[in-house]
Amino acid sequence: MRVNGVATRTVWWEQGRVRMIDQPQLPHRFVIVDMPDHRATARAIRDMTVRGAGAIGATGALGVAQAAQEAPDHDFHAWLAEAANHLRSTRPTAQNLFAGIDYVLRAIETAGSDVVRARAVAIEAANAFCDDDAESCRRIGEIGAPLLAGAAEGKGRIHVSTHCNAGWLAFVDWGSALAPVYALYRAGLDPFVFADETRPRQQGSQLTAWELGQEGVRHAVIADNATGHYLRRGDIDVVIVGSDRIAANGDVATKIGTYTSALAALAAGVPFYVAAPTTTIAMHTPDGDAIPIEERSDEEVLYAWGWSDDGRFLRVRTAPEGSRGRNPAFDVTPAELVTGIITERGVVPATRAGIASVARG
Amino acid sequence: MRVNGVATRTVWWEQGRVRMIDQPQLPHRFVIVDMPDHRATARAIRDMTVRGAGAIGATGALGVAQAAQEAPDHDFHAWLAEAANHLRSTRPTAQNLFAGIDYVLRAIETAGSDVVRARAVAIEAANAFCDDDAESCRRIGEIGAPLLAGAAEGKGRIHVSTHCNAGWLAFVDWGSALAPVYALYRAGLDPFVFADETRPRQQGSQLTAWELGQEGVRHAVIADNATGHYLRRGDIDVVIVGSDRIAANGDVATKIGTYTSALAALAAGVPFYVAAPTTTIAMHTPDGDAIPIEERSDEEVLYAWGWSDDGRFLRVRTAPEGSRGRNPAFDVTPAELVTGIITERGVVPATRAGIASVARG
Repeated sequence: MRVNGVATRTVWWEQGRVRMIDQPQLPHRFVIVDMPDHRATARAIRDMTVRGAGAIGATGALGVAQAAQEAPDHDFHAWLAEAANHLRSTRPTAQNLFAGIDYVLRAIETAGSDVVRARAVAIEAANAFCDDDAESCRRIGEIGAPLLAGAAEGKGRIHVSTHCNAGWLAFVDWGSALAPVYALYRAGLDPFVFADETRPRQQGSQLTAWELGQEGVRHAVIADNATGHYLRRGDIDVVIVGSDRIAANGDVATKIGTYTSALAALAAGVPFYVAAPTTTIAMHTPDGDAIPIEERSDEEVLYAWGWSDDGRFLRVRTAPEGSRGRNPAFDVTPAELVTGIITERGVVPATRAGIASVARG
Repeated sequence: MRVNGVATRTVWWEQGRVRMIDQPQLPHRFVIVDMPDHRATARAIRDMTVRGAGAIGATGALGVAQAAQEAPDHDFHAWLAEAANHLRSTRPTAQNLFAGIDYVLRAIETAGSDVVRARAVAIEAANAFCDDDAESCRRIGEIGAPLLAGAAEGKGRIHVSTHCNAGWLAFVDWGSALAPVYALYRAGLDPFVFADETRPRQQGSQLTAWELGQEGVRHAVIADNATGHYLRRGDIDVVIVGSDRIAANGDVATKIGTYTSALAALAAGVPFYVAAPTTTIAMHTPDGDAIPIEERSDEEVLYAWGWSDDGRFLRVRTAPEGSRGRNPAFDVTPAELVTGIITERGVVPATRAGIASVARG
């Protein structure tokens, strides 16, 4: 998608380095950073230089490709397995991360004991994984656009609510939840997005608002607390969010706060869509209760981050010195609250049969 | 309640001045500020130096008492009416503000044309209004404590969720939603409070966490987004919130975000109580749709406020420069989501009959 009018991806391979947009510096500075080896790439996932389901998966794939270049000839496969485990440990809820890592590992296996060939195959596979992510998201946009338009039919407007950032910054390109919004916009329609800020990490205000603005899509930043209010008042026609893991029964783990948006959408009679490439589906996860919920540092809740009036990026403490916090990163939205799951293979109901019909492998 | 171990109120009359805790400086600095005249007092309401339903009402009452001292003999009543309107205009959703102002105005009327007596009566009435607020809240604590304990019965714990600050900082003393928590704590029980931060103004992290900490009550600060998750997981036994206006049919206007907590409580089968003195009831407001919802500056959403690591209170911008926000201050929770309304006159169902049975005058 566009940054200052130029087509850009979130993460890509360039001469052995993994290059990516430094997302914590958004929206105030647009900076590309280089990860010279797979350990740096793993660090970039853990510290959320790169974040978002698809972008993490692509970065994991690229990290394995890097590790394949670094692994010594005499101990290639054991070294690589350890590097892959290291990459895997960075974000325990991220289904796509595992998908990206495993995709490249499987490709490498086809090279057998030919290490030179394995290294070449690893790069090809990682790049293919990135391209596949971008193409899946483009398809999600095509498939989802008429659903959004249909939800707003007869209203003379298309008012969309989203949570966190499931836009192109969360993938290699296009995004999942925002792909249909971009498809509508490029088709000449004028969607309006209520972007909630998504505390504690503020991906809505920092990333979603920024990428919508770069593309020219009208939007308003709102507190997470305001989404239910606008739904109840009839100001929102459709809710669309991404997902970090979809269980076999259709339960979805998404950014913390998604569950209450789904409850409020149901109460308002507004459709609640989950948009995600099929790499997000975890058939070995029977239901939402089996999804591990990452608990992150409570500092994220006790502080807020942003740019001071004199142009410095810093944190401010909002809570008292003596108080501690709790900080679950995701919640589970039960399948019965999900109107449909939009994948690159079509829209399916959030049921066992629906999920099975589009799941890969 | 206690600040550094010393009993303190939020706002009080002292020799013609209205003195109050400067709440925006909490939790990092505890400062008392003086309002020398009714215009300064009005400003303190508008800029939220003082905030919270009961504290605003008390400040309104004290502001009218100040205006009565300032009003010229020859034009006493007209001047006073204008001052009262000025005070009234500061927060359009705050039912208690009007109650406080009208209480003192009615007392002044009893003095007829005796201006000297009117001035004395105004001070007495304003102080009585403050004492009444504190006593009402103490009663709410007494009445609510067994309800909270009952909701947690058999669990070996009392896990309470609250939103915004409806503690003693929001009243003259004790608070509404937190009064039962303090009553339990002083009775030797050990309640634990999930205090959500309450964006955009962060009253949960800045005020609720602080006053709970000063009193010694265990608590955790969580993102607003996490309340639904903890409810769904069974980690919360009861939700209790305050209210800024209760309509005649039992609909309640409370801080933005309350509505989705109520939806999540219902989905989890957890009781959702509203605690408020009967001054919060607006019998002339038929239902929630008739409650005007204040929309505040979008800067509150585009920025976050707190203390930098080098000890300065400042704001940081989280949203892109080009983005705008929307910022409704309250939402309406429909009566059917409210388990009961805890007032100083007893617990009543959120129904027309229930509300009418405790409404004043």
